[in-house]
Amino acid sequence: MGDFHAGGISGPMNMVNSFDPARAALLDPADRELLRRRDASMGAAYRLFYERPVHFVRGEGAFLYDADGADYLDAYNNVPVVGHSNPRVQKAVSDQLGAVNTHTRYLAGGVVDYAERLTALFPEPLNQAIFACTGSEAVDLALRIARMSTGRAGIIVTRHAYHGTTTLAAQISPSLGPNNLIPPEVALVDAPDSVRDAPGEAAALLAARIDAAVEELGSRGIAPAAIVVDSILSSDGLQSHPVGILGTVAERARAHGALYIADEVQPGFGRTGSTWWGFERHTVVPDLAVLGKPMGNGIPISAVVGSQELFEQFGRKVRYFNTFGGSAVSIAAATAVLDELESRELLPHSEELGGELLSAIQTMTRDEPGVAEVRGAGLFLAVEFVDRSGLPDAVRAAEVVNAMREKRILISASGTYDNVLKIRPPLVFPRASSSRLLEGLEASILQSRPGAGWV
Amino acid sequence: MGDFHAGGISGPMNMVNSFDPARAALLDPADRELLRRRDASMGAAYRLFYERPVHFVRGEGAFLYDADGADYLDAYNNVPVVGHSNPRVQKAVSDQLGAVNTHTRYLAGGVVDYAERLTALFPEPLNQAIFACTGSEAVDLALRIARMSTGRAGIIVTRHAYHGTTTLAAQISPSLGPNNLIPPEVALVDAPDSVRDAPGEAAALLAARIDAAVEELGSRGIAPAAIVVDSILSSDGLQSHPVGILGTVAERARAHGALYIADEVQPGFGRTGSTWWGFERHTVVPDLAVLGKPMGNGIPISAVVGSQELFEQFGRKVRYFNTFGGSAVSIAAATAVLDELESRELLPHSEELGGELLSAIQTMTRDEPGVAEVRGAGLFLAVEFVDRSGLPDAVRAAEVVNAMREKRILISASGTYDNVLKIRPPLVFPRASSSRLLEGLEASILQSRPGAGWV
Repeated sequence: MGDFHAGGISGPMNMVNSFDPARAALLDPADRELLRRRDASMGAAYRLFYERPVHFVRGEGAFLYDADGADYLDAYNNVPVVGHSNPRVQKAVSDQLGAVNTHTRYLAGGVVDYAERLTALFPEPLNQAIFACTGSEAVDLALRIARMSTGRAGIIVTRHAYHGTTTLAAQISPSLGPNNLIPPEVALVDAPDSVRDAPGEAAALLAARIDAAVEELGSRGIAPAAIVVDSILSSDGLQSHPVGILGTVAERARAHGALYIADEVQPGFGRTGSTWWGFERHTVVPDLAVLGKPMGNGIPISAVVGSQELFEQFGRKVRYFNTFGGSAVSIAAATAVLDELESRELLPHSEELGGELLSAIQTMTRDEPGVAEVRGAGLFLAVEFVDRSGLPDAVRAAEVVNAMREKRILISASGTYDNVLKIRPPLVFPRASSSRLLEGLEASILQSRPGAGWV
Repeated sequence: MGDFHAGGISGPMNMVNSFDPARAALLDPADRELLRRRDASMGAAYRLFYERPVHFVRGEGAFLYDADGADYLDAYNNVPVVGHSNPRVQKAVSDQLGAVNTHTRYLAGGVVDYAERLTALFPEPLNQAIFACTGSEAVDLALRIARMSTGRAGIIVTRHAYHGTTTLAAQISPSLGPNNLIPPEVALVDAPDSVRDAPGEAAALLAARIDAAVEELGSRGIAPAAIVVDSILSSDGLQSHPVGILGTVAERARAHGALYIADEVQPGFGRTGSTWWGFERHTVVPDLAVLGKPMGNGIPISAVVGSQELFEQFGRKVRYFNTFGGSAVSIAAATAVLDELESRELLPHSEELGGELLSAIQTMTRDEPGVAEVRGAGLFLAVEFVDRSGLPDAVRAAEVVNAMREKRILISASGTYDNVLKIRPPLVFPRASSSRLLEGLEASILQSRPGAGWV
């Protein structure tokens, strides 16, 4: 226990918290048979979560239920941001499916209303939206826009970033593992790391790393078109602090003539607290913002938001059409999500409940050996584990994740070293469920506490 | 009239049948205001169809309705394959949204049932499916698989192909226009052309073109990973014949060590008649098939279908996860689509009604000057126009498309020279509506007939 594995314990499956097919015997017979059929018909690229995978047949709010009716507290899924089986989303989608579902080459009022409402949530000059279906598509489109407008090819991302699954999005997603090749146009920078960076030097370090990455690209004859950063650095271990650090990204990007693209697929729509977008916590304005996951509460919809000026440069040269992007049904879902977020005041809830949970976990773990830091923003929280040498402890993080699963509480892990708990519940997570989450977490951390060697 | 425009009349908007914003005065005041707001909030990359765009508020079966209740006969949209506002799809989606909508990292029965049912519709060895949200994502994934399994980078496509909008999919979509750069890894071949190729030589010509493309790639130090061909060559002008020509693609691909990828996004799910997939008409088996548009009747879902062997090579090296791909709601929609296609016997309907329409249009235009050919398969039909010199007549195709729109019948145009009518109704197109389509088409073709110079 507590061994340091460079790059974490992802192992042969290249993924933190992935089920090892060799352990299928842990499943009940019905799920074992389902897994066999799944492997036969869907193949080797698919992964499951947990040592003992879960199988849900019903969901409501922040809860999921298995076939036996057992309730699981969802402290992980960000897609159902306004709750599993949200009735307003269900009704909006069903009504629209019964009316009409045209694409954007016919006029339609809904998509325009939504584009206006969405862009009004952004600071100037971000006043236009282009719709796609997935975060990957939106990331890919943002990069096409950046490359076309700058006439350059280079892209800078953080060393353990994840930005998606298209060919280009995968090329800027080093967290996909060693078989996912990073091409010469892409340069990596270490993300800010609040456990390992010298205190107070994060901004200076990051600026120097970006400058070095630009130089590295330059040595290959490539100029940077864009720096893409997840506004909460989820895959790099949820680097929520220091607040303001994204200002450094924007400043260095512009100094080098590159665009700053904010990946808001995870942090967007109130995830990080009272601001709609993760970049707003840092009081910075990106050139492009990429939205996805929670946008339609599970109906596929994503967007790139940018300025009229940038979109003009792109749109006059090349048309963009996404058959399902901005279709009436996906817009109906996205509209219902905004209605729910606003009418239920879920952004203040994210800020307040998130703050309470953060404090409670910090207090609870103050004297816990191996907890290097508890951090986060809004309802996106991280607990980072190290071993007695201070090295990342991915084994313990995995143990806590799986102990929580056995208590029917869903979380996962992430980070450069797979040693960071990722707690990211639907924003409708009820305050009344805090104690179940906190007690489960306390017990799981205790359960995974290393033995005598520690003290 | 009748002038030949190299590359068609797409002009500044780079798209056939696109609305010219300078003609906004043709719209009624409410739609003009909506268009102004749309331009302001969604920007320059968006295009509308028709000289006078359409705006629908309701759809049912093969009909769409505007705000005044006027009915438009839909002979264009392939996404609502089982009909606009299909009640079975609506119910399936609504029920699933009310139950649970998890992703593929939790076990779920629906996605496995569907994967089995879908792959059973394919010939061996195509026995596994990976799900994504859009045709573009599926094309992009198929290319990742092909490149990883062959260890090569080259891709060969037809000269006016369209395969999608991700960076890589756009790179193999020369029909996106001159500003969409085709990189050195991609080589283009002229598609079969039943109007211009010497009769009986299509296969030999295509084989020679593919061999030349492989040589062209080789001269740049690149070996071919894949040849990607839309099984009905939609963007190349709906080259439905000669039947068997895709066998040449497969044969030459394999001779050169490349995979043959069938793009079934348009031809799949019975579009071309009694076979599920366009490649089956040609009695050939591809290495990978890419599905999209009609798969969920408007709910975003797509897939790559391939052999266990190929997917193993890919999946062991790299995981693939698409947040919404294969989620419970999209699978519910796709399942309802298969139910409808099968229970309503829409494949035989596509074959029979398509054959009747094809014959009727051929008869109707037998003596019509400027109709070079009427061709097609199933409910995917093309009428190709030439001028008196035998050169492609894109102007006339556009006139027919817009004359049809004024008669409230939706079709569009395509092809290397934008001179081919594209008639591609929902598969539920009722036989009772044939006369409206045929009469409208006859009148529109007559209306657009060139003047005295012809005879």
